[in-house]
Amino acid sequence: MLRTHTCGELRPENINEEVRLSGWVQKIRDKGALIWIDLRDRYGITQLLFKEEDTKPELLNKVRSLGREYVISATGTVIERESKNPNIPTGDIEIKVTGLDILNPSKVPPFTIEDNTDGGEELRMKFRYLDLRRKPLRTNLELRHRMAIEVRNYLDQQQFFEIETPYLIKSTPEGARDFVVPSRMNEGEFYALPQSPQTFKQLLMVAGYDRYYQIVRCFRDEDLRADRQPEFTQIDCEMAFVTQEDVLKTFEGLTTHLFKNIKGVKVDVFPQMSFDEAMKKYGSDKPDLRFGMEFVELNNVAQGKGFNVFNSAELVVGICVPGCAEYSRKQLDALTDFVRKPQIGAKGLVYVKCNPDGTFKSSVDKFYSQDDLNGWAEKAGANAGDLLLVLSGDANTSRKQLAELRLEMGNTLGLCDSNVFKPLWVVDFPLLEWNEESARFHAMHHPFTSPKKEDMSLLKSDPAKVRANAYDLVINGVEVGGGSIRIHNKELQKQMFKVLGFTDEEARAQFGFLMNAFEYGAPPHGGIALGFDRLVALFGGHDSIRDFIAFPKNNAGRDVMIDSPSPISEEQLKELNLSVDIEDAKEL
Amino acid sequence: MLRTHTCGELRPENINEEVRLSGWVQKIRDKGALIWIDLRDRYGITQLLFKEEDTKPELLNKVRSLGREYVISATGTVIERESKNPNIPTGDIEIKVTGLDILNPSKVPPFTIEDNTDGGEELRMKFRYLDLRRKPLRTNLELRHRMAIEVRNYLDQQQFFEIETPYLIKSTPEGARDFVVPSRMNEGEFYALPQSPQTFKQLLMVAGYDRYYQIVRCFRDEDLRADRQPEFTQIDCEMAFVTQEDVLKTFEGLTTHLFKNIKGVKVDVFPQMSFDEAMKKYGSDKPDLRFGMEFVELNNVAQGKGFNVFNSAELVVGICVPGCAEYSRKQLDALTDFVRKPQIGAKGLVYVKCNPDGTFKSSVDKFYSQDDLNGWAEKAGANAGDLLLVLSGDANTSRKQLAELRLEMGNTLGLCDSNVFKPLWVVDFPLLEWNEESARFHAMHHPFTSPKKEDMSLLKSDPAKVRANAYDLVINGVEVGGGSIRIHNKELQKQMFKVLGFTDEEARAQFGFLMNAFEYGAPPHGGIALGFDRLVALFGGHDSIRDFIAFPKNNAGRDVMIDSPSPISEEQLKELNLSVDIEDAKEL
Repeated sequence: MLRTHTCGELRPENINEEVRLSGWVQKIRDKGALIWIDLRDRYGITQLLFKEEDTKPELLNKVRSLGREYVISATGTVIERESKNPNIPTGDIEIKVTGLDILNPSKVPPFTIEDNTDGGEELRMKFRYLDLRRKPLRTNLELRHRMAIEVRNYLDQQQFFEIETPYLIKSTPEGARDFVVPSRMNEGEFYALPQSPQTFKQLLMVAGYDRYYQIVRCFRDEDLRADRQPEFTQIDCEMAFVTQEDVLKTFEGLTTHLFKNIKGVKVDVFPQMSFDEAMKKYGSDKPDLRFGMEFVELNNVAQGKGFNVFNSAELVVGICVPGCAEYSRKQLDALTDFVRKPQIGAKGLVYVKCNPDGTFKSSVDKFYSQDDLNGWAEKAGANAGDLLLVLSGDANTSRKQLAELRLEMGNTLGLCDSNVFKPLWVVDFPLLEWNEESARFHAMHHPFTSPKKEDMSLLKSDPAKVRANAYDLVINGVEVGGGSIRIHNKELQKQMFKVLGFTDEEARAQFGFLMNAFEYGAPPHGGIALGFDRLVALFGGHDSIRDFIAFPKNNAGRDVMIDSPSPISEEQLKELNLSVDIEDAKEL
Repeated sequence: MLRTHTCGELRPENINEEVRLSGWVQKIRDKGALIWIDLRDRYGITQLLFKEEDTKPELLNKVRSLGREYVISATGTVIERESKNPNIPTGDIEIKVTGLDILNPSKVPPFTIEDNTDGGEELRMKFRYLDLRRKPLRTNLELRHRMAIEVRNYLDQQQFFEIETPYLIKSTPEGARDFVVPSRMNEGEFYALPQSPQTFKQLLMVAGYDRYYQIVRCFRDEDLRADRQPEFTQIDCEMAFVTQEDVLKTFEGLTTHLFKNIKGVKVDVFPQMSFDEAMKKYGSDKPDLRFGMEFVELNNVAQGKGFNVFNSAELVVGICVPGCAEYSRKQLDALTDFVRKPQIGAKGLVYVKCNPDGTFKSSVDKFYSQDDLNGWAEKAGANAGDLLLVLSGDANTSRKQLAELRLEMGNTLGLCDSNVFKPLWVVDFPLLEWNEESARFHAMHHPFTSPKKEDMSLLKSDPAKVRANAYDLVINGVEVGGGSIRIHNKELQKQMFKVLGFTDEEARAQFGFLMNAFEYGAPPHGGIALGFDRLVALFGGHDSIRDFIAFPKNNAGRDVMIDSPSPISEEQLKELNLSVDIEDAKEL
């Protein structure tokens, strides 16, 4: 090794030892008689010391030629530091350097390698290898490493086998858009990259593997948002001979294990809430339970009083914001502007201030008496000092709008503490959702999800009403993952494909292998997939997953560092029997 | 859970407990008054018992309706078995069944689910989920799971970070053929699937991550052999601030750890042999050291005696096969046929029997006296009773031919015990090899491998002579992996690309990001990649990797189970701006 110790390792007990350290020049302070260098590696920072009076001129010249981010190797003696630095573990010592090798010089980096850098997003993406030197990113990737280890430790203890499934699989039109891979050996045919190992993990259950997991890359060719990547990582699991409750308990165990071993916090209450209840109480299937402000339906007390906006609404619904009765006109206007934003789309916002003296002041005072408003407050459980915020209209729409307002108020009031973790199982999802564009039902989870036994009779008569054995794990309003108990019966699977608008031929061509497998002793089974990028970001206290991925792509799906994707050669295209048809290209 | 215990769990101490087991019907024996069923799951087999006299007719009927591979769930009492089966851990008990659920019936499987099945290769590939139920495959995949865990345990202890690198990267013409992935969002452009994360792991070193590993899928679009797959898994590692010796020691540690924890054997001698020595002594850069038969060069003693075949040969080279002097004419003819096979291509084989009485009998007696042959025997260290086998011709060719013969003799003589493990580092590989077809040098390892300092001056004058800081780990004649100390200097990397025939523009277009990175403080670094499929197969005592992969592809790169690759829709092609050009298709 080109070092005897790392830059995070030396302590007072090493004083007088001869050591060799290697790393990057973080900082140089040249006071003439004394020169200090902060030497950095993955493990920490150690201070190097050069005294002009007892350092050879040759070495001094070398030291003075150094710049930021040079890679050097220094030999010397560990000595006690005069002015100790209590902020770093090596702060009690420094190295009195007697020898120095410049292992590689460095140009001045295009941005500073500091916790708060001066580099913009695009520049940092292009020089990702420099951005990754910054401590926040190193901390994120170390967190990811440790979480992967703990995930595997837990699942291994629970008898799960890690089994690798193929990446070159088959394109299926159901679900999101596939990335495809042309086959050279099979002319005109394509593999697809997996959106998830769904069918393979089900086949592993048919094969008797009982408990499977994998931390696995998945691919979706979707238009990207800030928190989506074309390739993402999933903790993918499946279990045989289980009920829904068994799956939930197992993954509560995993989550608890991670919170304990990674964050040192005890999180072991996992309430369950039906999809319907979540939509009614929070207007969302992934409610943030770190704070209250449950929805209150006000139709009874708010309708029939001459305020036509409410009278004509399917739903009048509000939240009680604690302690905000003193909000100024300006603050209330800002909230109205918030709900009127095009992404939210409410027409307006009604407020009721529950004044400390027991009176009420609302934006609809000309329609409602103090008594009326008192009725609202009572219904909402509002106390003196609270603020009621009320929306109305079509039930689904107003709920979604109010959900946004609720989150906004939670953030504004500082109720979204990233060190508090509130998990929740959302259960009893609808099996199907109607898709206007294709004018048919789509599977809400995926086509392999089983319907609830008691709703089976509705599958023909009223498919929209059928609930699924499906569940989502939500933590702090983030959908961390989801799963279901699967269909394991060929006839039911056929029926399901029919409801989803597949002809028998289509179903057979795409999923024939799975339906065949169901005829050879498929056990009851179910599973879950957790978004690993998102889970790590949640543990790291961030919303965006990008800085928890070593080499992410930008919003156009490009890796700007390696400049990919890129054109390939005519020879490659020819070998694949492909030609590229682009209008512009043709015109050239 | 649809069970209280697994089928591998119950012991005499559970006698009288009420239990529920679920699994697959392995075997039914119906003796009229008594029916036994072997119930199987991943964990083992438990015997179920039904006594006709005290079983309800309804239940008996159900039992008699069962067939092989039905999935059932049985409740009953654990009782002591009358005739115990010492071959299975549950052999002391059985279950007196009182309740039975058929969870799923099964058609008769197309082949038997036994250790030695009657199913052919193609059929088993098509019904892979049934083949995977067989114990040999389950054992292989469990071995793979356990090895992955131990690899991670060791590397984590050694401070390696597991860091995921992207799968959608950039196509480069160097090396094998890439699989490419058309980008919809970037018209006419393609990603490539990684042949290895080589450049990314080097960038992680530049980023200061110090020690990286990943168990990662890699892809090569090559024509397939029995032991090659288009996608394969690699234990991929990189370390900064290391010398070659540091890398070797670290991965000797990993190998020793695996042998100890997986096989329970102590393997800690890792000899090093130069490429030149390996070629001279064994005619191979991956010699099997489980047995001797080192090559002996006989030019001195065999040339100049009137035998023109030898006189005109660049090399006369032989092996001494111990104890085979009694080989019959037929056996010797078979060996001659072996070396004459087109894949080996020798013209003939010369033998010398060292008879027990001290005389010699050879196929070239008319050219050589007993004294001459005694000279050969002495040179070869042959004792009475041994057999000398000798080839001649062009040096490289004869060595390769003799290497095949040596392996054949090792196998024939039972010297290749799959429970004996003999690792070896082959070092000092040539940096470059001349490629006749492209009439230029190719990198023997890859273009990022550093030349040995002492050979650097030859890089311009005699590139073929330059040795690399490259090494292969060979165990029992299997190349388990290889690596190198990398170039970390931009100028040297540029020079290397030049030697490999890249123009500056080509080098910049393809690897500009890496050469740029070298300008911002790249540390000295090196690494290794081990073939995980091959390593697991080696530990499992098999040559072929296919049965150590859950869902392998066949020799045409097809997954015959899911029938992939397959055509994709016109709509998909259009979205990707692609069209398929196949002669046959055009004629339709």
